[in-house]
Amino acid sequence: MKKYCFGVDVGGTTVKIGLFDKEGNILDKWEIPTRTEHNGSEILPDIAKALEKKMEEKGLKKEDMVGVGIGAPGPIDKEGTVYEAVNLGWSVFSIRDTLKALCGMPVRAGNDANVAALGEMWKGGGQGYLNLVLVTLGTGVGGGIIVNGEILNGATGAGGEIGHIHIQDGEEDACGCGNHGCLEQYASATGIVRLAGRILGATDEDSVLRQGEVSAKAVFDAVKAGDAVAIRIAEAFGEYLGKGLAAIAGVVNPEAFVIGGGVSKAGNILFDFIEKNYKKYVFHGSKDAKFELATLGNDAGICGAAKLILE
Amino acid sequence: MKKYCFGVDVGGTTVKIGLFDKEGNILDKWEIPTRTEHNGSEILPDIAKALEKKMEEKGLKKEDMVGVGIGAPGPIDKEGTVYEAVNLGWSVFSIRDTLKALCGMPVRAGNDANVAALGEMWKGGGQGYLNLVLVTLGTGVGGGIIVNGEILNGATGAGGEIGHIHIQDGEEDACGCGNHGCLEQYASATGIVRLAGRILGATDEDSVLRQGEVSAKAVFDAVKAGDAVAIRIAEAFGEYLGKGLAAIAGVVNPEAFVIGGGVSKAGNILFDFIEKNYKKYVFHGSKDAKFELATLGNDAGICGAAKLILE
Repeated sequence: MKKYCFGVDVGGTTVKIGLFDKEGNILDKWEIPTRTEHNGSEILPDIAKALEKKMEEKGLKKEDMVGVGIGAPGPIDKEGTVYEAVNLGWSVFSIRDTLKALCGMPVRAGNDANVAALGEMWKGGGQGYLNLVLVTLGTGVGGGIIVNGEILNGATGAGGEIGHIHIQDGEEDACGCGNHGCLEQYASATGIVRLAGRILGATDEDSVLRQGEVSAKAVFDAVKAGDAVAIRIAEAFGEYLGKGLAAIAGVVNPEAFVIGGGVSKAGNILFDFIEKNYKKYVFHGSKDAKFELATLGNDAGICGAAKLILE
Repeated sequence: MKKYCFGVDVGGTTVKIGLFDKEGNILDKWEIPTRTEHNGSEILPDIAKALEKKMEEKGLKKEDMVGVGIGAPGPIDKEGTVYEAVNLGWSVFSIRDTLKALCGMPVRAGNDANVAALGEMWKGGGQGYLNLVLVTLGTGVGGGIIVNGEILNGATGAGGEIGHIHIQDGEEDACGCGNHGCLEQYASATGIVRLAGRILGATDEDSVLRQGEVSAKAVFDAVKAGDAVAIRIAEAFGEYLGKGLAAIAGVVNPEAFVIGGGVSKAGNILFDFIEKNYKKYVFHGSKDAKFELATLGNDAGICGAAKLILE
């Protein structure tokens, strides 16, 4: 009887792998290096070998396994075709068919941010919701959208690429994507540091942020300590992000936003800055969306990947 | 054998009804008045009577009918519950269950704009696409989103309410929804007239628009005649709408935008103003989305409603 599955989360430096039972309990998890040489051609064979080894170790047979779910960075459609994953060296090919041929088990593949959203819905901060948006505030701003319990992949796997929604006219700095004024430029960890630099530079006012290196964490620590300049930085962040999430709600009308990524470690205080701005800009039909913190951290990817294959 | 169905489109003044075969051919269509008195309690009984009468006239039995699809203005979830339809006097109730009890046939209900999007996908400008956004540029800006061939209703039926995405900071005029700077304030027929008033008021330059009443039609007629001021108005319209559609693409990554509503009668010239701005603001993963004109006009609602029940 098929009782177990693997959830795989391919990152730029390591591949995280989890062995799950069908209820979503993590029975084992480990990492292998991501070998990006030769256009990433070793990555899927390395994963297949790691799975085989783990099955031997645990005395599991293919008949025991539902299959393998896998998330990777880049646009991946619902058939499991990746269109390009620059970080991994991958161009266009079917992750699903390739990994299936290598490991002899059913495979489903998806974009890593979308898959993480599925994980948070299943076992994390999004439990109880079937329509949610995971907003990952890290180096960049990533997103994953779940509609009626399923990933919204979009036509070419670029669904939920919310970090590049245009949010500010007249921005002179370019975003990593080449555009100007993307949400990511203000609401990511990097964006918060940029906002901090601008606001600190425009005033002589005293602030703890003038001591040491400014980071997103330092900003929110200072907010918690009541630092007036840090509060203004957080207000600017909240205005941009609240406005961006309101636009997203105008499209998909989610039950909840689940906030993850490094910046979310600041905790519930984030919502003080995001929610009031969200309510200011959003269409009344979406005013009651809930705000939750992601809870799975680095396990969101493997959990979501497991859910993908169990569906 | 079940060979036919009804598609019903409830508007504020008339209810449009079509009798369809399963291939989507319109065998008959007609209208009845929308009686909004008594909180709209007569509307569904009137529809049920109209359907019964038509079936008698055509010699059709319930066994011949797949059922009834119905679209109405207001947030309606995928179970067919309407949350409030101000124009009709309706508060919260199940359209599906109520109409089913009245007419004795299966019923599916949806928001009118979403249902129209389904109609354009099936028989109109969106044929061949399974992921599209219908953008209706009329008195307001409406929207309907189709993902993998199905309507995106959203958590509370407010999916696709794209007219109220915040697009301009600092706007002093209020939108009908109470917010300031909504897409609808610049890209609807009314919005275009407002933009025209601002641009005409800011210059003494000669323009055919200074003769007679300014309307969206007059603006695009003047654009076609090469009027420089009208072209600037159309550029402003295109900048707002292109930016708004780029934000939508950042969320759902559609294959195509289908442009309908009264403003779309201007034709392909609209795309000259929308597409270049869309490409300027959109994330590269959605750059290749197609732009199409809606073709069903007033029949989009009944066609989509028929498709809804045939699915």
